[in-house]
Amino acid sequence: MNHDTATNWAERKDNVLLTDFYELTMFNGFWKYQRHEQRACFEYFFRLLPPHNGFALFAGLEQVLDYLRNFKFSPGDLEYLQQIGFETKFLDYLKNLQLNIDLWTVPEGTVIFPNEPILRIEGPLGVLQLLETFILNALNYPTLVATKSARVCYAAQGDPVMEFGLRRAQGPDGGLSGSRAAVIGGCVGTSNVLAGKLYGMRTLGTHAHSWVMSFDSELEAFRAYAAAFPDNITLLVDTYDPLRSGIPNAVKVFSELRAAGESHDGSIRLDSGDLAKLSKEAWRLFQEAGFKNPTIVASNELDEDLIAELKRQGAKINSWGVGTHLVTASNCPSLGGVYKLVAIFGKNGWEPRIKISGNSAKITDPGRKRIIRYYNAEERPLADVLYLEGETIQSGKIKTYERDSLIKEIVFKADHYQELTLKTVEDGKIAANSISVQEIRAQALKNLAQLPDEYRRLRYPQTYDVLLSPQAAQTKQAMLEAANFYRTETAAGKDEV
Amino acid sequence: MNHDTATNWAERKDNVLLTDFYELTMFNGFWKYQRHEQRACFEYFFRLLPPHNGFALFAGLEQVLDYLRNFKFSPGDLEYLQQIGFETKFLDYLKNLQLNIDLWTVPEGTVIFPNEPILRIEGPLGVLQLLETFILNALNYPTLVATKSARVCYAAQGDPVMEFGLRRAQGPDGGLSGSRAAVIGGCVGTSNVLAGKLYGMRTLGTHAHSWVMSFDSELEAFRAYAAAFPDNITLLVDTYDPLRSGIPNAVKVFSELRAAGESHDGSIRLDSGDLAKLSKEAWRLFQEAGFKNPTIVASNELDEDLIAELKRQGAKINSWGVGTHLVTASNCPSLGGVYKLVAIFGKNGWEPRIKISGNSAKITDPGRKRIIRYYNAEERPLADVLYLEGETIQSGKIKTYERDSLIKEIVFKADHYQELTLKTVEDGKIAANSISVQEIRAQALKNLAQLPDEYRRLRYPQTYDVLLSPQAAQTKQAMLEAANFYRTETAAGKDEV
Repeated sequence: MNHDTATNWAERKDNVLLTDFYELTMFNGFWKYQRHEQRACFEYFFRLLPPHNGFALFAGLEQVLDYLRNFKFSPGDLEYLQQIGFETKFLDYLKNLQLNIDLWTVPEGTVIFPNEPILRIEGPLGVLQLLETFILNALNYPTLVATKSARVCYAAQGDPVMEFGLRRAQGPDGGLSGSRAAVIGGCVGTSNVLAGKLYGMRTLGTHAHSWVMSFDSELEAFRAYAAAFPDNITLLVDTYDPLRSGIPNAVKVFSELRAAGESHDGSIRLDSGDLAKLSKEAWRLFQEAGFKNPTIVASNELDEDLIAELKRQGAKINSWGVGTHLVTASNCPSLGGVYKLVAIFGKNGWEPRIKISGNSAKITDPGRKRIIRYYNAEERPLADVLYLEGETIQSGKIKTYERDSLIKEIVFKADHYQELTLKTVEDGKIAANSISVQEIRAQALKNLAQLPDEYRRLRYPQTYDVLLSPQAAQTKQAMLEAANFYRTETAAGKDEV
Repeated sequence: MNHDTATNWAERKDNVLLTDFYELTMFNGFWKYQRHEQRACFEYFFRLLPPHNGFALFAGLEQVLDYLRNFKFSPGDLEYLQQIGFETKFLDYLKNLQLNIDLWTVPEGTVIFPNEPILRIEGPLGVLQLLETFILNALNYPTLVATKSARVCYAAQGDPVMEFGLRRAQGPDGGLSGSRAAVIGGCVGTSNVLAGKLYGMRTLGTHAHSWVMSFDSELEAFRAYAAAFPDNITLLVDTYDPLRSGIPNAVKVFSELRAAGESHDGSIRLDSGDLAKLSKEAWRLFQEAGFKNPTIVASNELDEDLIAELKRQGAKINSWGVGTHLVTASNCPSLGGVYKLVAIFGKNGWEPRIKISGNSAKITDPGRKRIIRYYNAEERPLADVLYLEGETIQSGKIKTYERDSLIKEIVFKADHYQELTLKTVEDGKIAANSISVQEIRAQALKNLAQLPDEYRRLRYPQTYDVLLSPQAAQTKQAMLEAANFYRTETAAGKDEV
């Protein structure tokens, strides 16, 4: 990420107010009771993957770090908060607020699963409350799009996939962070020029129907384009009629170039119609004209399912432009990441906290946790285990418990393990340097390649195990018992759904 | 909108590169052929409403105007473009580029329909091409969310609706423009503090589960909150168990306040579980305790359908917090707005242009157009008619044609009409002053109230007529005939779907 530019949105001023009103209210409340500096621990996790997903790919951390680097209430912010009713003494306190926090996270580009504490933050209660909304906003969307991108690229079976979604993205920075996440998930580049500039990613594109329409004929438009950009000729063939006009005209132009001594494989883009049929016909016409390896790009409302289906139908497409459905993650446009209090530092040190619900999926795992990923000798991940901070990490034969039932013991053998949650911020200082998007992408592709196919397939993937360590399970069970969770019932039955 | 702050995202530098790579390529191509200053006309429209929608509500224009106000290639932009291969002479041209464009649009907060030229822009071909992506990005998403918000508020039948979606929005500026659009569509306020500051909107909120969890007991947490914020007490009652603990504790705290001589109606928020059942039970307990008009706020995965269903079930909810499904427009997270070339200024003046497709819904309406909305004497809109620029607007008995068939004549009587497309930019100068979000919202509510219920209902609304004027229909038919559209067929049948 390029920190020299003023446009990197998170470096802009005033983002400290990009939070929910109630975070400030609660901060103010904690401050009134002098509880705001009590040390607390929150964790970020999500409970459910998007439908049909077997994994997620973590992205968005760099935005959180940028936010922390630039965290400051401006005079205008404080003035606004006064206008809407916050008291002067509290605002004076905010003016000099320091972020003396510690942060542990998995690196961007890591394969992650539900209920894992992907980010753990420790610091004063008031500050952590304030940070909630931004952290959720910064992580939920990029993680969603990086995950979608990994699926789209999986469906494309190694063909290059380009991200073309800016025009349909949800807002301009949705476009920016969406493009970045799409490349992390495997796309080779983006059409978004500003994203290319800010994140050092490859920018790509061809031409639009309007190029063709602005000339008197399609053939004239194609010849003009080829002459203007001899190094990168991809002709859009569906402005008028691909079969009767667009494809034959494109083949004609490439043949003319070859006759003039230039070397070209031929390259077209299809943006509407029956992509399977049109691509096969285009392939045939190119072959007949002696072009053996043409590039046939397809775009138009593509997603992983449609790409997989076109592959199954033998479409002669070898390059994909994916826009709307990728950057909006259209079949599930939000990731339900949450940020929950898991411990408070009290008289007796760290005390775990739990959120209880009649819906057992909504019960949180109390305590400050680490994620340990166990592997077999072939570097295949076997399961992730959530350990409490300070607990001994097991090796060899691993004894764990199911997160929900807590009673069911799961034992497995592992060859080795890796801790996923790394300390990224210490007492407000960011330990790690920024990592380039290309490095994150490379790490993501490596992680994805390690993940067995049964977790990656597009429909009905296997569920990867996320388990509790003995101490984590014991703590949770003890807290549920203390809250009478196992022993009461309302007359009308469960009151939560 | 507050133009004094540095955070208004569109005022930030470098947004000029927030465009697709191919726009710059095409601009460069037009420049090579000295066609870049040929005057052209593009129009923005969408072809389809989101599922079950009978109308859309236009929003996002202010972002386009801000972009135009701040349009400039920075030295860093030009350096980047050189790095990725654009030639120096073209970049020298871009350095001094002036936006000598004219723009007509409907005002924000106007009810609009498919295939209407909501925005029409005229100027040099190269510049208009460059502007395409930004205009699409800036208009598609806010229009989508303003429309969703209007539906959500319609379902809430006059109850206040608050926008709470920042944490699940697609990126930070998605959150900002989403909050703004939600208020335009009818929400009374937002949880997003920065949106409140930038757009002068009301910010709202209560407290989170973490407030309760950070105290030793729920009752202690409620008492502390009530004492800290006596003017705005809404207690979140589902941290542990709403029926056995949260609601009784809340009623107890409000009763204590009343006993201490303070006047309160009682106010709680439900964020999980069976909202219908819980709200009825809460209502009953408040009534028994002598609180006759409590406020019962509901949140948790709400959208217009769930709100309508809860209303039907007699839920005692009178205030709604809507987040994820509103700001992501989750059932249809993109609006397919497009930006199409409709005319070129040639030797004989303005020449219409058409995009032809085997799919008749994708054929564009050629020529520079205006939108005229006809009304009956009761101010109810009857139909919108697209006239060519310069054509006489009909009064009284109106003769029009269907957009697709072109042959079917539709005649109706109108009492009066209004032109929707107003000149907003003249030769690069923005004619209109910024309008506050509250004014836009008031205009939107007025427009929505005029729209008959049959177009507003949540399922199977009537289709509002968008028709072509005699000249617009004649021009389209003549161009289709000239392109042999009516007379040819491939052996294999239609090649587009």
